[in-house]
Amino acid sequence: MEIIQTDTGRVAIIGASGYGGLQLVRLINEHPIFKIASLSGERSAGKYWNEINPFIKIAEDKEITTCNIDEIVKIADYAILSLPNGLSSQLTPLLLENGVKVLDLSADYRFSSLDKWKQVYPTEASKYPRFDYELCEEAIYGFSEEFSKEISNSRLIACPGCYPTSSLSVLIPFLKQGLIESDGIIVDAKSGTSGGGRSPNDQLLLSECSESIKPYGVIGHRHAAEIESISSRFAGHELNLQFTPHLVPMVRGILSTVYARLRDPGLTAEDCKIVLEAYYNNQPFIDILPVGIYPATKWVKNTNKIMISVEVDKRNGRIVLMSVIDNLLKGQAGQAIQNLNIMHGLESDIGLPKITFYP
Amino acid sequence: MEIIQTDTGRVAIIGASGYGGLQLVRLINEHPIFKIASLSGERSAGKYWNEINPFIKIAEDKEITTCNIDEIVKIADYAILSLPNGLSSQLTPLLLENGVKVLDLSADYRFSSLDKWKQVYPTEASKYPRFDYELCEEAIYGFSEEFSKEISNSRLIACPGCYPTSSLSVLIPFLKQGLIESDGIIVDAKSGTSGGGRSPNDQLLLSECSESIKPYGVIGHRHAAEIESISSRFAGHELNLQFTPHLVPMVRGILSTVYARLRDPGLTAEDCKIVLEAYYNNQPFIDILPVGIYPATKWVKNTNKIMISVEVDKRNGRIVLMSVIDNLLKGQAGQAIQNLNIMHGLESDIGLPKITFYP
Amino acid sequence: MEIIQTDTGRVAIIGASGYGGLQLVRLINEHPIFKIASLSGERSAGKYWNEINPFIKIAEDKEITTCNIDEIVKIADYAILSLPNGLSSQLTPLLLENGVKVLDLSADYRFSSLDKWKQVYPTEASKYPRFDYELCEEAIYGFSEEFSKEISNSRLIACPGCYPTSSLSVLIPFLKQGLIESDGIIVDAKSGTSGGGRSPNDQLLLSECSESIKPYGVIGHRHAAEIESISSRFAGHELNLQFTPHLVPMVRGILSTVYARLRDPGLTAEDCKIVLEAYYNNQPFIDILPVGIYPATKWVKNTNKIMISVEVDKRNGRIVLMSVIDNLLKGQAGQAIQNLNIMHGLESDIGLPKITFYP
Amino acid sequence: MEIIQTDTGRVAIIGASGYGGLQLVRLINEHPIFKIASLSGERSAGKYWNEINPFIKIAEDKEITTCNIDEIVKIADYAILSLPNGLSSQLTPLLLENGVKVLDLSADYRFSSLDKWKQVYPTEASKYPRFDYELCEEAIYGFSEEFSKEISNSRLIACPGCYPTSSLSVLIPFLKQGLIESDGIIVDAKSGTSGGGRSPNDQLLLSECSESIKPYGVIGHRHAAEIESISSRFAGHELNLQFTPHLVPMVRGILSTVYARLRDPGLTAEDCKIVLEAYYNNQPFIDILPVGIYPATKWVKNTNKIMISVEVDKRNGRIVLMSVIDNLLKGQAGQAIQNLNIMHGLESDIGLPKITFYP
Repeated sequence: MEIIQTDTGRVAIIGASGYGGLQLVRLINEHPIFKIASLSGERSAGKYWNEINPFIKIAEDKEITTCNIDEIVKIADYAILSLPNGLSSQLTPLLLENGVKVLDLSADYRFSSLDKWKQVYPTEASKYPRFDYELCEEAIYGFSEEFSKEISNSRLIACPGCYPTSSLSVLIPFLKQGLIESDGIIVDAKSGTSGGGRSPNDQLLLSECSESIKPYGVIGHRHAAEIESISSRFAGHELNLQFTPHLVPMVRGILSTVYARLRDPGLTAEDCKIVLEAYYNNQPFIDILPVGIYPATKWVKNTNKIMISVEVDKRNGRIVLMSVIDNLLKGQAGQAIQNLNIMHGLESDIGLPKITFYP
Repeated sequence: MEIIQTDTGRVAIIGASGYGGLQLVRLINEHPIFKIASLSGERSAGKYWNEINPFIKIAEDKEITTCNIDEIVKIADYAILSLPNGLSSQLTPLLLENGVKVLDLSADYRFSSLDKWKQVYPTEASKYPRFDYELCEEAIYGFSEEFSKEISNSRLIACPGCYPTSSLSVLIPFLKQGLIESDGIIVDAKSGTSGGGRSPNDQLLLSECSESIKPYGVIGHRHAAEIESISSRFAGHELNLQFTPHLVPMVRGILSTVYARLRDPGLTAEDCKIVLEAYYNNQPFIDILPVGIYPATKWVKNTNKIMISVEVDKRNGRIVLMSVIDNLLKGQAGQAIQNLNIMHGLESDIGLPKITFYP
Repeated sequence: MEIIQTDTGRVAIIGASGYGGLQLVRLINEHPIFKIASLSGERSAGKYWNEINPFIKIAEDKEITTCNIDEIVKIADYAILSLPNGLSSQLTPLLLENGVKVLDLSADYRFSSLDKWKQVYPTEASKYPRFDYELCEEAIYGFSEEFSKEISNSRLIACPGCYPTSSLSVLIPFLKQGLIESDGIIVDAKSGTSGGGRSPNDQLLLSECSESIKPYGVIGHRHAAEIESISSRFAGHELNLQFTPHLVPMVRGILSTVYARLRDPGLTAEDCKIVLEAYYNNQPFIDILPVGIYPATKWVKNTNKIMISVEVDKRNGRIVLMSVIDNLLKGQAGQAIQNLNIMHGLESDIGLPKITFYP
Repeated sequence: MEIIQTDTGRVAIIGASGYGGLQLVRLINEHPIFKIASLSGERSAGKYWNEINPFIKIAEDKEITTCNIDEIVKIADYAILSLPNGLSSQLTPLLLENGVKVLDLSADYRFSSLDKWKQVYPTEASKYPRFDYELCEEAIYGFSEEFSKEISNSRLIACPGCYPTSSLSVLIPFLKQGLIESDGIIVDAKSGTSGGGRSPNDQLLLSECSESIKPYGVIGHRHAAEIESISSRFAGHELNLQFTPHLVPMVRGILSTVYARLRDPGLTAEDCKIVLEAYYNNQPFIDILPVGIYPATKWVKNTNKIMISVEVDKRNGRIVLMSVIDNLLKGQAGQAIQNLNIMHGLESDIGLPKITFYP
């Protein structure tokens, strides 16, 4: 495939100072097609990028500005929003009206029902008045492997949460094909601390998190609603599941250990592996591991990969699915660029890392 | 309670060089009643303890020797064995015959059926010929809170595995009282690397484990059999469950996140907390946390505590139980000393730490 | 020594919410002589200690209050201040006037000259107007091993900084005896993140600090002035030295690697070890390691110990001194309790941990 | 520059199983010019690469074989040796005689005098008899930035050690120009654990290394001799210095903090920064940071960069130089590829990462 850099791949990054923004800058800076049109960020407004990020210097240095939509619509074809929940919804309509396509990293458009969003994000709902019901319906859930066709035709992508990306990657193939019971599914998820962001936070100090693991948001975590919402689509009916996130003393990475019951208890781990391989055939970012090889989050660190393994307990037909991602790449900014590639008519894997440096 | 040091509290530590041994030396050295009678260890035989362990100096330095049972029976009232599985069974009968009471940290006497043990530990069974069926039946499973009466009358204690200690602490109260379904229980457990021991091991290098979490032994881990065996006793029938251990980038600590279905889906988290409080009433090492407070492994580091929290998903009557321990103390050497206290007629908590240094 | 609990060992902890406060509560709670009189802390005022610190429960729970000096002077014999620099000086005079002895963990009384303090802490000096020149002169620098006699007679102890404690422990013996050149001394120090405190701070997030080491405050760190000030006293003349602190991805611990030139280049490492042993003869918290054994910070974690090792480069008469401490204990709260013991006429090591749990 | 893949860029990797080998495979696999000709490794011989390294899959899978020089000379233009010290010298002559150019990651050719090598590596010298005096003289020390011309004309490159790469990067500019005293230089270096390799090793277990920092090899570390040897060349006379390595609880990265005395004490930090910028003008892998910005090892993780900062203590004319690298890339395999690029007549930075993923 020939690669031609055009004027139509100009990307505004709104919310450049957080960890999501850092990844976006890092990826677009080296991307053969896209260019950074502008960098917006409250925290660092007025400073030059390379001055405050000497570890991620960009080729053409830029001043970080407060977000100015009027300006952005003049110079950008795409905007990627890495903003707090609720705030995205205040900017997105304006961007779309002016012809800028939007990839939103927040949860604002992940539910096709705005009412559902208001229920899951009540604090944000009361802070930011929203009436964009139609945009919620229009937005495409940006799990790239599943919805690439819709993504390619869309102007508004709701990029999935980090936990949902990891969980759904193993749930969808089995739910869609009716291979597991939709009742009693358990997602035990483990994440590094970068999922909690870059803002000052005493709970995420190294002194607090190092040498410790703990559960949090045990019942009712907002990503549970997101996982249930998408899972229900594929199950064909409403389902609820247990989702327990845990904070792990590491920077990057999510491991989801997913437990369910096979409809046909005669299926072996090898069978289930074949199911996964068939489902994700030719997907450049998904690796199905041999039975008995279990993935470490480190295997996908700094890549846009998902690595998956499956086991079956022959005694009782229970299936254990394991899925690892880098929460900041496939779980956030990497998947956004993957979607951007698709929207732009490119191969989905252009400019995205596939192999980690180990160890 | 008055404390008098006697000549009957002499303890031989067999297998002093590993992490289990280190904890035993550390604890007995400062214990007001017990004294270290001898230190045996293959790796360090011939060296003096304080020379090779300048970070855990003992009051009266001792030479580490190869294990000599004839010598030990002359100078010790108790022997604590911190040895590889299978090897313990070769020494225990001799010690018992000579009147030395045994606390075994290996799995050799954790199953009342020797045949079951041979099935779960086939490699060890083929290496070490065993016919001590009766000792297997005689041995008391040393989960102190549950079996303190039996422990006080026993001469052979099979100290529980680290994962089983953590899991059983929350399973037993609910299984015994028939409050949860015995089918479909899931134990998702997370451990620090010290559980893998102190021997050279490329899989446990910091370079391999740091910045990563991974599952291992996903189906058929040997602690699964142990948890099932003890759980079945309390359920009143054979049960099987899912047990998935994970390796966490930290030194000490185990967190078990346990999922089950309530028989009475009307029970609330608050109800379940009260169940736990009632069950563990007055146990000095067990803390039931308020609903909504979830334990970090760090909260029990370097202590003999178990901290427990419980949640219920009102939508479906599913219960989530969380339990943290220090794998080397309550999960190993600390519980051995707790049992030793009980065997010796002391309060169970003498000489055992209850409060961590934080952070 | 017989231990009698009296009414004269009541200790007010002012600034209980930070890491220093946590250690103080932890230590006094289990101390055989002292009792917690009151707990003050801005961040947590109005809450009960055990509610917000379920990992360090105290025997008699107490409400944390905003600091009320009038109240404290009624119920306390001693006050330990774990407050930001500058703030201590606003409370200390009042406490002393009312007969409460003060142990201050801040830098406010570490310089016998208030003018020097104002020069080293200009921001604090402009925020908090100070005229307590005499108190600065009166205060005893609480490096327990060196000044125990003065401490026992004092009502105001300026507890040393964490870096100074570690550095001075090896510098003083050699400077005092004129064994090293006072020119060209280099202190390369490495600290865990807990030295940076418990407040929200994006620079101390696990995501930022893990998997990384970096220097900071390279020239002109405030602890450099403190080390120089005390070192000069022992050298008999003003000296200046290089002090470079580094942030290490761990919670607790400081290692100081100190470089100097021997006056007599014929001295061997063994000679220098003997110098140290003689100097610290019978000090319960100081271990001089055999030549060739170098200390890890882990060896003193959760203890009040200093472990020291020394090497000499025979080629050029240069000496390398290594000293490790737990920055929150010997480097902060532990040394405060050690001083409190001395002030109260007790053995200095009562109630202070000496042996770590390893690993 | 046009890039054409030819048949002359075939690279045999000898010692593929260690961390050095992993990096080499990772880098060459994605390199636009070079191809992996063969993979040799004792530990994994007989297995296929992708089977045992699912986290670093290569495009064309290869069997790992025991090293067969006869075979290698037929299929490779270059051999990169990632072997234990001493062993390299047994293979290198044979490879060179058969026209295969050699890049050696061991220390075998880092000293132009074989006798010096034998003195610094006595154990290896007694195990492997060596008489290749002329090769030692012929070999070029592969510090790419300094010796690129010699490298481009050489058939044997002794790639520098990790510590020397970091230290020399800041020492050479100042020694060569006579700006610092050559007496009294101190290198205080800090390394992650991956520098200790991938073999089973109880000293490098996460349980041992996590939450701790310690010095090792305090006087007489072998990299000290290497740093002194190369430094002496640039100083114009023999010098000796203090070199103290420390083990840091992290996987990758080296920070060297280097202390020296300026010949002209009037130079400022800004002056010294300009010296460095001028010296390393246009070097793609060297970043001189603004005065007051100090580098973290994380800033160069997974890159081939060196980041350098400098400070001067105006009071005494002492200079503090700080240099960070990724020990496995610029400190090992990355620099080897950089040298390979130069030998092959390419730009030195082809196929080498320059920007980290942060955090």
